Amino acid sequence: MSDPKITPERKSRDWRDHWYEIIFEADTRAGKAFDVVLLIAILLSVLVIMLESVDSLDSEYNEYFHYAEWFFTILFTIEYAARIICARRPLRYIFSFYGVVDLLSIMPTYIMNIVPGETQRLGVIRALRLLRAFRIFKLGHMLSEASELKRAIWASRSKIAVFLATVVIAVVIEGATLHLVEEDKNNGFDSIPESMYWAIVTMTTVGYGDVAPVTPLGKLLASIIMILGYSLIIVPTGIVSAELAHGGKGTERNRITTQVCPECMREGHDTDAIFCKFCGGRL
Amino acid sequence: MSDPKITPERKSRDWRDHWYEIIFEADTRAGKAFDVVLLIAILLSVLVIMLESVDSLDSEYNEYFHYAEWFFTILFTIEYAARIICARRPLRYIFSFYGVVDLLSIMPTYIMNIVPGETQRLGVIRALRLLRAFRIFKLGHMLSEASELKRAIWASRSKIAVFLATVVIAVVIEGATLHLVEEDKNNGFDSIPESMYWAIVTMTTVGYGDVAPVTPLGKLLASIIMILGYSLIIVPTGIVSAELAHGGKGTERNRITTQVCPECMREGHDTDAIFCKFCGGRL
Amino acid sequence: MSDPKITPERKSRDWRDHWYEIIFEADTRAGKAFDVVLLIAILLSVLVIMLESVDSLDSEYNEYFHYAEWFFTILFTIEYAARIICARRPLRYIFSFYGVVDLLSIMPTYIMNIVPGETQRLGVIRALRLLRAFRIFKLGHMLSEASELKRAIWASRSKIAVFLATVVIAVVIEGATLHLVEEDKNNGFDSIPESMYWAIVTMTTVGYGDVAPVTPLGKLLASIIMILGYSLIIVPTGIVSAELAHGGKGTERNRITTQVCPECMREGHDTDAIFCKFCGGRL
Amino acid sequence: MSDPKITPERKSRDWRDHWYEIIFEADTRAGKAFDVVLLIAILLSVLVIMLESVDSLDSEYNEYFHYAEWFFTILFTIEYAARIICARRPLRYIFSFYGVVDLLSIMPTYIMNIVPGETQRLGVIRALRLLRAFRIFKLGHMLSEASELKRAIWASRSKIAVFLATVVIAVVIEGATLHLVEEDKNNGFDSIPESMYWAIVTMTTVGYGDVAPVTPLGKLLASIIMILGYSLIIVPTGIVSAELAHGGKGTERNRITTQVCPECMREGHDTDAIFCKFCGGRL
Repeated sequence: MSDPKITPERKSRDWRDHWYEIIFEADTRAGKAFDVVLLIAILLSVLVIMLESVDSLDSEYNEYFHYAEWFFTILFTIEYAARIICARRPLRYIFSFYGVVDLLSIMPTYIMNIVPGETQRLGVIRALRLLRAFRIFKLGHMLSEASELKRAIWASRSKIAVFLATVVIAVVIEGATLHLVEEDKNNGFDSIPESMYWAIVTMTTVGYGDVAPVTPLGKLLASIIMILGYSLIIVPTGIVSAELAHGGKGTERNRITTQVCPECMREGHDTDAIFCKFCGGRL
Repeated sequence: MSDPKITPERKSRDWRDHWYEIIFEADTRAGKAFDVVLLIAILLSVLVIMLESVDSLDSEYNEYFHYAEWFFTILFTIEYAARIICARRPLRYIFSFYGVVDLLSIMPTYIMNIVPGETQRLGVIRALRLLRAFRIFKLGHMLSEASELKRAIWASRSKIAVFLATVVIAVVIEGATLHLVEEDKNNGFDSIPESMYWAIVTMTTVGYGDVAPVTPLGKLLASIIMILGYSLIIVPTGIVSAELAHGGKGTERNRITTQVCPECMREGHDTDAIFCKFCGGRL
Repeated sequence: MSDPKITPERKSRDWRDHWYEIIFEADTRAGKAFDVVLLIAILLSVLVIMLESVDSLDSEYNEYFHYAEWFFTILFTIEYAARIICARRPLRYIFSFYGVVDLLSIMPTYIMNIVPGETQRLGVIRALRLLRAFRIFKLGHMLSEASELKRAIWASRSKIAVFLATVVIAVVIEGATLHLVEEDKNNGFDSIPESMYWAIVTMTTVGYGDVAPVTPLGKLLASIIMILGYSLIIVPTGIVSAELAHGGKGTERNRITTQVCPECMREGHDTDAIFCKFCGGRL
Repeated sequence: MSDPKITPERKSRDWRDHWYEIIFEADTRAGKAFDVVLLIAILLSVLVIMLESVDSLDSEYNEYFHYAEWFFTILFTIEYAARIICARRPLRYIFSFYGVVDLLSIMPTYIMNIVPGETQRLGVIRALRLLRAFRIFKLGHMLSEASELKRAIWASRSKIAVFLATVVIAVVIEGATLHLVEEDKNNGFDSIPESMYWAIVTMTTVGYGDVAPVTPLGKLLASIIMILGYSLIIVPTGIVSAELAHGGKGTERNRITTQVCPECMREGHDTDAIFCKFCGGRL
């Protein structure tokens, strides 16, 4: 900042960096304001998509929804263009997770107007723009919380994999067993995949009741599955809670800044980091 | 108490303070008795409201319910007036949480008799008077327990916010996806909001079964959502239980007295506090 | 045991004490065998009661069930008499929890044969004899486990009371709100008690689906209740698990013997106890 | 390996040991590759069984399913034979858990073609071959995770037994009570076993809704059961999570190798073990 000589090339880069700070970061005031405005725009545009899907509302306010949709699409298109211009390596941004989500948020409206006829179908894809709202975690101190949760889940990934594998094996075998027992009496168990759907609905304790055993033997087996399955499925709670209890005892240094590397678009830098730990670019 | 000179002005304040102790506090014997009697009155009056809403009972015992309701309303009105008189700063009390609840508990009966015709509708509001029962936490050693729970939940608020944001985003995207898949075959997925209702019913494992997927692809997606969603929703359990496990190791000094500041009506003072920590008023 | 003088009075007491050891305790080989045989008899007799309640089986094997029932009743009557004779203070035993359960296990069969006509009704009460199976916790090292669980739950009782009070208040207010919103459109919300039944079914995530909101506002409110309610109801898991995590760090001395005081019939004596800590009687 | 004299007998054993390493172990590269190929074959063959059970697919692609099934059966038969040949004590392998599962995976196809007529029935048994997929836990570092989970559950077995006994007793008594209350009005409570099915569906919070109380008293009792039952059933979560939290503090030495004893087919050897701790055979 206090460098004595500023070349024109440097000036242009400063200009880009200035906007980069506002658009990608959230640690300046302007950057925070930008993120808040964007978040509100995202939520409003998703609300419009939701209301549009209600037939009774759509038939009445169709025109207004149309205008609102174009307004948000143009807004997000300008933002998308600005992001590409500001990023030091635009291709990195375009193919990053948020880059793809940003594009998927605006494409449907354009396509729907060039290739009409399948409007409704594509329109639903726009709901994916809500994924952009995950950027709010940059605001305030939520990032370190989010990353602590992520860390706890990540640290438990092997245990969770073992657990999920056990659940899947249990679901297949339960499904096959109930299929064998109930097949003749019950439409809901006509094939193994259908029985597996029932087994998942039962083991997660959702229990719609659209499929339920009717034979005494089926009910007995289902009862055993429920009690065993219920005991089984509580295991991950224990895993994650034990992990979090340990994690809380960790050092204070895993506070993470909200910086995104302007070079490689990756997050998760420590507060004392000056260079990106993934690509070495200056933050 | 052992002050040598008592001016008349001081005397009046003593009289008010005496009643204040009884009505607002629970650490004298009279104060405890008052709270217990009040609690019984609240429970009985809510029982009357419940039974009144049962049509078969209402048609038969309507008159008794009417008398009981007036009895409790007058009782609570006297109590409300006494609270206003005893409080050093009545306006603070009136606009405090309990002040508003106390008023909402008695207003409907009066309004229902001045502006008749919409009796039933307003009557239900009276059920809010059960909120007053939260005052029972002042009895015995429950306050510190309640406040430990509150503390654990409060300490986890950022994690819970991150978690709830994730759940809402997941619900919207799941709702939109299932709406896309099931729309043509299933009335329960006619619009995104309806699909979101289904997604919430499923992710919380309530599973009424009033809406359930019928297409094979919908069932497959629902199964994935159930297993992932179930794994997701167990996270807060881990958070709160880790927080409580840590909290228990905390110091013993976070025992909290049952005192309410007579000036600003706020609770949560330490046992060794002499002045209110919010407004500086003497306790 | 090595006392030099044994008076006749002492002899009779020794005889009673010998049988007392077998019938009430489980730390001798004969005592363990007695408990195992009794447990099998209890399980078989409950199985007979269950099968008897199935109409198709009852009409066919009624006679066998009748004989089996009399066999078990006479067996349990002999056991009941033996317990009264062996206990040093028979009245204490008769009015203890297990004493009452033991009596309720045999009475129905006698009453059903003296006062016929209401057979089926009383017959179900015999299922209570399964409560006697709790005595199996005396076998092996389960007692200390059971008592550790009991201790964790007991240590959390204030927190659980606060939690249950909150749940009840939430259920009443939710019930009243949904009753207000859905009353006109939905038979399941006709009165506040019925709405409360729905609220409990929903908050515990059981979700039968026999009652479910149908209006958009009702569905919106129900969704909020589900997410909040679900977050609320996970709290006790955290409480108990934190309590158990602490408890595990406690001393080893809370191992508890399986002894029941022959004088006052109370359990929970330490392994090094020689006299009953409740009544001072020799164990 | 550096032994000077290699007798012919020794040579033959080396050859067998070499294949033993590949087929039974997963710590060499060839062994890992073998396990991965086998896992894919298992998953594909189970997929075929699932699709075969869907009637619409079966009628169209029956022939392809038939060929695929024979392909996998022959593959698994060769593998089964190889395992018997390589194992130092073939009988041990044959009667071990995996030995029985391996046999059950291939028998149905042969029996179905020798004794035709009950094809479908036996075919479902083949789904048990998915149990063989549990061998994947040998890959990577999942074994120690799986064994930590197993350890935590095993360490809690007495608590879980106490808990399950309590649940079963509660289910029987609740079932008998609701049977008494609802019998006359509700088909779902016709007998105690049917009421117990309802009680299990309710206590595990599955809540299909195929059976639900209809009388006011039944609903009241069901509400109490739900709240109490829900509070009861959360207990094991606490148990396992407390156990895991403690376990994590244990020493690092309980890392377990993926070795299976070639003599007795048992697993769970420490990384520094040279001889099997169960039979003394060299690993």
